[in-house]
Amino acid sequence: MKIMRPKQKIYMDHPKVGSVWRENGCSFTVWSPFAEKLEVILENDNTRYPLTPNDDGYWRADIAGLPADTAYFFLLDGTKKLPDPASRAQLRGVHGPSTVVPDAFAWLDKDWKGLPLSEMIIYELHVGTFTREHTFDGVARRLPYLKNLGINAIELMPVSQFPGERNWGYDGVFPFAVQHSYGGAGGLKRLVNAAHREGIAVILDVVYNHQGPEGNYLGNYGPYFTDKYKTGWGQAINFDDAWCDGVRNFYRQNALMWLDEFHIDGLRLDAVHAIWDFGARHFMEELASGVRQLEKESGQRKILIAEFDLNNPRYISKPESGGYGLDGQWVDEYHHALHALLTGETDGYYEDFGEISHLARSLKDGYVYTGQYSKHRKKHFGRQPDGITYDQFVVFAQNHDQVGNRMLGDRLSTVISAEGLKLAAAAYLLSPFVPMLFMGEEYGEKNPFQYFISHTDEKLVELVRKGRKEEFALFQWKGDVPDPQSEETFKRCVLCWDVDRNEDAKALFSLYQFLIAFRKTRPAMQGRIRDSLHVATSENGIVGFERRFLGDHILVILNFNKEAAPYQLPDGKKANKIFDSGSSRWGGQRNADRVHVTQGGSVMLNPLSALIFELS
Amino acid sequence: MKIMRPKQKIYMDHPKVGSVWRENGCSFTVWSPFAEKLEVILENDNTRYPLTPNDDGYWRADIAGLPADTAYFFLLDGTKKLPDPASRAQLRGVHGPSTVVPDAFAWLDKDWKGLPLSEMIIYELHVGTFTREHTFDGVARRLPYLKNLGINAIELMPVSQFPGERNWGYDGVFPFAVQHSYGGAGGLKRLVNAAHREGIAVILDVVYNHQGPEGNYLGNYGPYFTDKYKTGWGQAINFDDAWCDGVRNFYRQNALMWLDEFHIDGLRLDAVHAIWDFGARHFMEELASGVRQLEKESGQRKILIAEFDLNNPRYISKPESGGYGLDGQWVDEYHHALHALLTGETDGYYEDFGEISHLARSLKDGYVYTGQYSKHRKKHFGRQPDGITYDQFVVFAQNHDQVGNRMLGDRLSTVISAEGLKLAAAAYLLSPFVPMLFMGEEYGEKNPFQYFISHTDEKLVELVRKGRKEEFALFQWKGDVPDPQSEETFKRCVLCWDVDRNEDAKALFSLYQFLIAFRKTRPAMQGRIRDSLHVATSENGIVGFERRFLGDHILVILNFNKEAAPYQLPDGKKANKIFDSGSSRWGGQRNADRVHVTQGGSVMLNPLSALIFELS
Repeated sequence: MKIMRPKQKIYMDHPKVGSVWRENGCSFTVWSPFAEKLEVILENDNTRYPLTPNDDGYWRADIAGLPADTAYFFLLDGTKKLPDPASRAQLRGVHGPSTVVPDAFAWLDKDWKGLPLSEMIIYELHVGTFTREHTFDGVARRLPYLKNLGINAIELMPVSQFPGERNWGYDGVFPFAVQHSYGGAGGLKRLVNAAHREGIAVILDVVYNHQGPEGNYLGNYGPYFTDKYKTGWGQAINFDDAWCDGVRNFYRQNALMWLDEFHIDGLRLDAVHAIWDFGARHFMEELASGVRQLEKESGQRKILIAEFDLNNPRYISKPESGGYGLDGQWVDEYHHALHALLTGETDGYYEDFGEISHLARSLKDGYVYTGQYSKHRKKHFGRQPDGITYDQFVVFAQNHDQVGNRMLGDRLSTVISAEGLKLAAAAYLLSPFVPMLFMGEEYGEKNPFQYFISHTDEKLVELVRKGRKEEFALFQWKGDVPDPQSEETFKRCVLCWDVDRNEDAKALFSLYQFLIAFRKTRPAMQGRIRDSLHVATSENGIVGFERRFLGDHILVILNFNKEAAPYQLPDGKKANKIFDSGSSRWGGQRNADRVHVTQGGSVMLNPLSALIFELS
Repeated sequence: MKIMRPKQKIYMDHPKVGSVWRENGCSFTVWSPFAEKLEVILENDNTRYPLTPNDDGYWRADIAGLPADTAYFFLLDGTKKLPDPASRAQLRGVHGPSTVVPDAFAWLDKDWKGLPLSEMIIYELHVGTFTREHTFDGVARRLPYLKNLGINAIELMPVSQFPGERNWGYDGVFPFAVQHSYGGAGGLKRLVNAAHREGIAVILDVVYNHQGPEGNYLGNYGPYFTDKYKTGWGQAINFDDAWCDGVRNFYRQNALMWLDEFHIDGLRLDAVHAIWDFGARHFMEELASGVRQLEKESGQRKILIAEFDLNNPRYISKPESGGYGLDGQWVDEYHHALHALLTGETDGYYEDFGEISHLARSLKDGYVYTGQYSKHRKKHFGRQPDGITYDQFVVFAQNHDQVGNRMLGDRLSTVISAEGLKLAAAAYLLSPFVPMLFMGEEYGEKNPFQYFISHTDEKLVELVRKGRKEEFALFQWKGDVPDPQSEETFKRCVLCWDVDRNEDAKALFSLYQFLIAFRKTRPAMQGRIRDSLHVATSENGIVGFERRFLGDHILVILNFNKEAAPYQLPDGKKANKIFDSGSSRWGGQRNADRVHVTQGGSVMLNPLSALIFELS
């Protein structure tokens, strides 16, 4: 009579939340463990239908004969008329009724298998400002352009329903509803469908660390939030306190909804350092395990990329070595090291960067801080990413935060020279990491990416305005903080798309095109394990690194000096220059085309330039 | 020119805090990163000596010609006269001057090598109430008694200086100072020295999750605390926020001081779930790594045992599998499973226990909750302790908390019958885990272990009194809550030591003696890997488990029924009874000695009894 492990009712078996429409009726499910009474109330005629609770606090009603686009509220305890926390559509905004959305869609991507992170060239974009249409369909029309550039993955900033029509997306309050002004669930599915037809994967930015400040009705339904921890953006979500099972289920189902029902290829998980979970199984680990299961079932590659500020490889380590098993993470430190070199800026977190050795360290290890003292953080920070490969790190020269969190949202294109932009592009596209472009950078877009909102709560708007001003006052920056609520601010940020009308833009675009193609096809660029890169030089404003794979051997030299500078090529090797960002081919001055290799094996680098030599 | 990792100034190189006396002078070091001025001020003549800061916020003075027992304060910014946070002695209590204590001691334990956790029989004691002397010397005089019982490790409840002379120790405020009323540093060293001479290891309970509420001057000196997290006992200690390096150093040095300078063999780390550290290297991991280093250097075994309430094996897993590398942990769930069966209590956390299967699960896996839903916690809880061995779990039938946190601090001896006490003893001493006794339980001590304090702040005393009353009012327990501040309460808790004057006490003592000796010597009891135990039965109030090791095979049967009950012995095996807790040998009734094995291989178990059969 062997002891049996007790039957574990695991919360992953919790019912599916939200509305599910079928020909024969519609079901409504909502988690609300403390509610005494819950009803569905139809928007058109105020008919009420009672929901029935189960032991886990899930209330459910099955109602026959409802049309596919039924609009409804929940009536909580007979008094509070509120939208569904797992609403699939908020056609009249965050305060309006929820709307049922049938799952049906004519998918044409059945042969699509997804892409591994190691092969991705990611393009981050904001649906509202990417095109003048401000919609998913607008994005879809640009897919051929992106494909021509060499992009094979787009990353959409969050699209969950937010207040109004203008928002970065991090103020979303209905994780399951697709922003109506972008084109809703149908629009997103059309975009994914079209992207897959072009061989382009779609990554979606999702926010599981907080909910936005307006239209956030979750707390009415149950203990979605906790006071145990803090976040910089509002109450922390309850991932480890009493009643957390219902909350974990909510976000877990959300992740799986995008990956499964919307055919999304990967999620970029916003600020996971603010997903506070001190339990025995971190929500990230559990999510990764659920996604691995989905991969098996679907036969499609699904990717999880974390944004986090901890330099803790546990998140991206394999479960067998005690890790949470996410695929990859953003490395902001690579950006900071590069940005500080390019701009000379030392404000805020840039005080921890600015030496050529910082960039060299990041090229070698991903993280810059792996246990050293950080002046900015005032403590020792990070650890060595042992066991991690290069293709688990996503790097960039710009992204929505690094541009948009500047007071004026000014892009690198308005801060540094054209030569600097080319150097920046080469620095990360030739790195062993997974590169990510920020929309428009490939042609030097000059419109800013500023912080914008469209809240309807005037008090909140004032608070946001005040907060922005105070934030920048700290740095004593000059000029006026753009009004985040103004429609003008939003409009100013829409891409101008002058890539075809401007010689500089064309040259930059073709340099990006070249580097992306080079990255994809050159054998030496395919090395992913950490000893496939060797930092040869890191001094006098120059980083030289060698990459070697499959018998191919290249040397990349990045010159951050604003003057020409000499570089000693490695002894005993034949060095053949195959790329120079300073060349006239990419819009540089004609005299930059000369190769000055001296008898002693020294080469003269153009000011602010990147070079590739083939070594043999 | 290979890139070099930048020189990492690691904070473990921080200077040693506190006072260090040498023949030629005394040095004083204190971490106070925001202080503008710091002086040592001698207690006898008010002479001041300035301290000089370094870049990390450590202030230091070296003063020649000070006597070995110099009493001093620090004068912070010219106005605040405060004791040293790393004071080595507070002879006039927590508000008085700090006193220098020379390291010199005539150690006689140079051949002592420590003990592995797997071999330990631990005895938890509170120095103040263990003997009528209330001192370390009092404890030392009882060492032969403990040795005779079979104990080879004593675990001292915290001895860091606390307010007054009566306290469990968890209100300590000077981690580096040994409670003066217990006998101070000299008394502790004498005890450790004597214990090692008897072959007894000494484990010390240390509190790194909070500081006590009275005499807590740390916050004056720097950011020792953080508001990022909460604890139930006061401000959380700053282990991961800005400036945490100085704080981590403080507690790390504290741990190493006990293990190195005091020859302590192991630390019991109080409530490590409240040591909030979200950094890339958890303080527990770092501490374990420092202790492993000390083990290598000293050639002595040093043990780290965590108390924590997370059922997360990461804390005790090996670093190579992503763990923090502590040696072991307390398993409160084993206690709860056992206690609920013995008493039928269902209050508070006992609501998650009470089934025979809970005890069976804990016997097999250590943890009871490894991912199941916990009614009490209102969430799924815990995970399987994969890769963990039995000797990493410390179990007990009673401990200071499980007795003392009851309103009346009543021990099992006053709650259940003598037969139940013997069953309880067998249940954990025959388990594969590391057993821990609570002082006096081996002879059925009947004096309670109540909550006592001796604060001098009357407002605080009132708060504590009120808090205790409110806590127990929740459970609607009857009777008066003992006054924690009253000296009577403390006196009531001192052991009566009637072990030699009472037949029941003698019988229980000899049963403990037998079981401990059996545990130490019987081959089958030495199995530590998780498949060396097989739960054969877990139903009808009976757990039967087999242990097999080195060709030896035994069956342990625990009958929690208050009536005699039949038990079916395993088929095809010869079963020879070698122990019955109900026997007259241990004070049971004479008719309990008969063995009733029927033709069908069934045996009749005495009510509330434990049996051992040898199987062959």
